[in-house]
Amino acid sequence: MSLLLDNQFTELPPDKSVDTKIFLEAVSHLPPFFDCLGSTVFSVIKSDINGNITKITAVYKKDPAKYATLQDILEAEREAHAAEWPKVGATLALMWLKRGLRFIQILLQSLADGERDENNPNLIKVNVTKAYEQALKRYHGWIVQKIFNAALIAAPYKSNFLKALSKGEEVKEEDCLANVRQFLVNYTATVDAIYEMYTNLNAELDYTV
Amino acid sequence: MSLLLDNQFTELPPDKSVDTKIFLEAVSHLPPFFDCLGSTVFSVIKSDINGNITKITAVYKKDPAKYATLQDILEAEREAHAAEWPKVGATLALMWLKRGLRFIQILLQSLADGERDENNPNLIKVNVTKAYEQALKRYHGWIVQKIFNAALIAAPYKSNFLKALSKGEEVKEEDCLANVRQFLVNYTATVDAIYEMYTNLNAELDYTV
Ligand SMILES: CCCCCCCCCCCCC/C=C/[C@@H](O)[C@H](CO[C@@H]1O[C@H](CO)[C@H](O)[C@H](OS(=O)(=O)O)[C@H]1O)NC(=O)CCCCCCCCCCC
Ligand SMILES: CCCCCCCCCCCCC/C=C/[C@@H](O)[C@H](CO[C@@H]1O[C@H](CO)[C@H](O)[C@H](OS(=O)(=O)O)[C@H]1O)NC(=O)CCCCCCCCCCC
Repeated sequence: MSLLLDNQFTELPPDKSVDTKIFLEAVSHLPPFFDCLGSTVFSVIKSDINGNITKITAVYKKDPAKYATLQDILEAEREAHAAEWPKVGATLALMWLKRGLRFIQILLQSLADGERDENNPNLIKVNVTKAYEQALKRYHGWIVQKIFNAALIAAPYKSNFLKALSKGEEVKEEDCLANVRQFLVNYTATVDAIYEMYTNLNAELDYTV
Repeated sequence: MSLLLDNQFTELPPDKSVDTKIFLEAVSHLPPFFDCLGSTVFSVIKSDINGNITKITAVYKKDPAKYATLQDILEAEREAHAAEWPKVGATLALMWLKRGLRFIQILLQSLADGERDENNPNLIKVNVTKAYEQALKRYHGWIVQKIFNAALIAAPYKSNFLKALSKGEEVKEEDCLANVRQFLVNYTATVDAIYEMYTNLNAELDYTV
């Protein structure tokens, strides 16, 4: 389970502000994870998420003090690009990144909760579909939805997925899921805080791709 | 038709060697073309092709004299990476790039030849499918093939496609196709020469993704 536990998200402060540097460090460990899933299909998703992280990092590095929290970035961009905002810069990149993060969160939570297809207990199709429906589907036009359905076939078996989460070590399913639960605590709090921020700042868009 | 005719490929010399610099200049005009097709789906293909071009360009720039022709690159890499070659470096990037180029060639040729679905004369599905079957399908596993079938729905109408080829100007279909035919002369000769080179150097692989 090292893959997740080595890279825990940190606890949020009481005001739920997300420190940009710490956040970028933590999310940078997620994309390599898509390599473990063993299909070309996932490399496309990996590069989309990597692109988001690169874009946010580039903005942050221009002035780390000014962009200390994610909210600082959104507010500065709202000021600087009034006409296009929020469909611009790191605000747009984080808008999409948070959806990918939510997808991962719901997928892991569903596995941790033991949700499964009783007829195919080693498939994660039900968990992936749930995550897709709640995190992404409404932002995808029908062609991308169809592509998702085709890509779903490439989803790994649950046993291989849990093994990948554990850096290739054979661990007992229950031990792995206990670690997932622990990982989810701060991770979910962080993703929730980002969603709340988008709502509060009126920065959320619902166009489809 | 400017989009194609502004960026003609040049005639090959009698020995059919492909000048690296001229080739890279000419292919660099192809990826922006995928933007005209109007769907997210094509941006994925665009970045794959862009990645190939970037990789070949990086090798070329290390020593333009040494890598004056594409064959120079393949031979140098065969020498330098005997163990992994040809699944390495610019040799691998060009192996895939040429398949995308062949796809485009067959698609344009099929349109120029007037091949069409008589019941849906404004669809290019038959032409795209032909190009896919001849250029790419055998290198794609069944999941990517399924994704191709889903993506096919995003293919533009023939009239919009020809308009995109003409930089958004309304031109008569026959004028546009006459230009396509002219573009195809040197373009096809170049793609053929690259394929021949891969055969001659025994550099072709047939693994699937
Ligand atoms: C020859 C064969 C041809 C076939 C070619 C077919 C290609 C099909 C490609 C389908 C789409 C792949 C997924 C990528 C989707 C992306 O389009 C969306 C929006 O992407 C955002 O778009 C913005 C502009 O609108 C900015 O550019 C953002 O970039 S910016 O940083 O520049 O601002 C960018 O992330 N991201 C998404 O939907 C996010 C996806 C997250 C996915 C999470 C995990 C899902 C796991 C699924 C498991 C089954
Ligand atoms: C949430 C939703 C989730 C859904 C996500 C689904 C994503 C599905 C993605 C499907 C695949 C998209 C197409 C890309 C395919 C690529 O995998 C292949 C091989 O790509 C090569 O791979 C090599 C290693 O084996 C090197 O990395 C090469 O890179 S290297 O430069 O580093 O050496 C690289 O080009 N290229 C290809 O097959 C080439 C494709 C050319 C396409 C030509 C036009 C087709 C037009 C079709 C019109 C309908």
